[in-house]
Amino acid sequence: MIKYPINKNTSNKQNNALSASNRGMKLEKAINLSNTYYLNKEIANIHKKPTPIQVVSVDYPKRQAAKITEAYYKIPSTTDYNGIYRGKYLDFEAKETKSKTSFAFKNIHSHQINHLKSIINLKGIAFFIICFSHYHETYVIEAINLINRINENKKSISYQEIKEEGYLIKESYQLPLDYLSAVDNFIK
Amino acid sequence: MIKYPINKNTSNKQNNALSASNRGMKLEKAINLSNTYYLNKEIANIHKKPTPIQVVSVDYPKRQAAKITEAYYKIPSTTDYNGIYRGKYLDFEAKETKSKTSFAFKNIHSHQINHLKSIINLKGIAFFIICFSHYHETYVIEAINLINRINENKKSISYQEIKEEGYLIKESYQLPLDYLSAVDNFIK
Repeated sequence: MIKYPINKNTSNKQNNALSASNRGMKLEKAINLSNTYYLNKEIANIHKKPTPIQVVSVDYPKRQAAKITEAYYKIPSTTDYNGIYRGKYLDFEAKETKSKTSFAFKNIHSHQINHLKSIINLKGIAFFIICFSHYHETYVIEAINLINRINENKKSISYQEIKEEGYLIKESYQLPLDYLSAVDNFIK
Repeated sequence: MIKYPINKNTSNKQNNALSASNRGMKLEKAINLSNTYYLNKEIANIHKKPTPIQVVSVDYPKRQAAKITEAYYKIPSTTDYNGIYRGKYLDFEAKETKSKTSFAFKNIHSHQINHLKSIINLKGIAFFIICFSHYHETYVIEAINLINRINENKKSISYQEIKEEGYLIKESYQLPLDYLSAVDNFIK
């Protein structure tokens, strides 16, 4: 387990210093470390999907690994994360915003919305992890709450609405982002 | 829906010609087409994960897409396919063999076995799709059947054992590889 510079039992001064470290740690890294924790504890098996890449040209040098010499990033057709928890299929997208007031839907691809709609129809657990970096707060919110607003042609969801309808994720030394405890609130 | 050159209602002569086409069609393509069918019919949402690639160097030409100029294939830490079906988390690996008599376990990475064990412990549906190209037959077999043999230090599972313990996948024009009908046999 890689150590993560967050500890609840510290003074305010230390907390500020640690928050600064926290800002430097990307959301993706915090989720991946948490997923490793969940996997090792046999709580859940959740992975980030690799970024899809279109390979155009590959060299095969003798006695060396194949070297890709021309390739391009492709737009993913699904969300970034999926896996299994409490016997359920889980699917989510994680996003960070610098805004103090709202999360804008332009940050979500339409194919990701369609994918999450499909998952909901098939009785999976679909949600977003949204980090408000200004407040150092990260929330879990069910995908349906955002999808309903998008269907009403709304362009964003306010920070206040996320606070009310979502669940603040607890952070700790061992478990950088305990988002599954937040998910427990809406798993039937 | 992309047309697939298999049709049950043809003469023997046609069947042979079509089988030849079938041989040319890779297992992965048949699974991906079937997944598209399942997705469009709202039966299941199952995707192949992108191949993980370690990007070393990227060019950013003006007004053009970022061009990856040096990258290497990484060994995947999970299986190739996962998704949701009948409210369950599904996870599987697909393999093809030219052997007439058995499927050798050297074709499976140890991390894939560990991953499937974890999925079974977490109450997911874990299986293999194994294509015997010589017979033009493709089977679904529960992962536990292979894992138990690997734990007993066996090096392979025989074709006969797969016939007895697995489920032959039906093929059709619209649905190249209807593996979920085979999976129905062991979903509780």
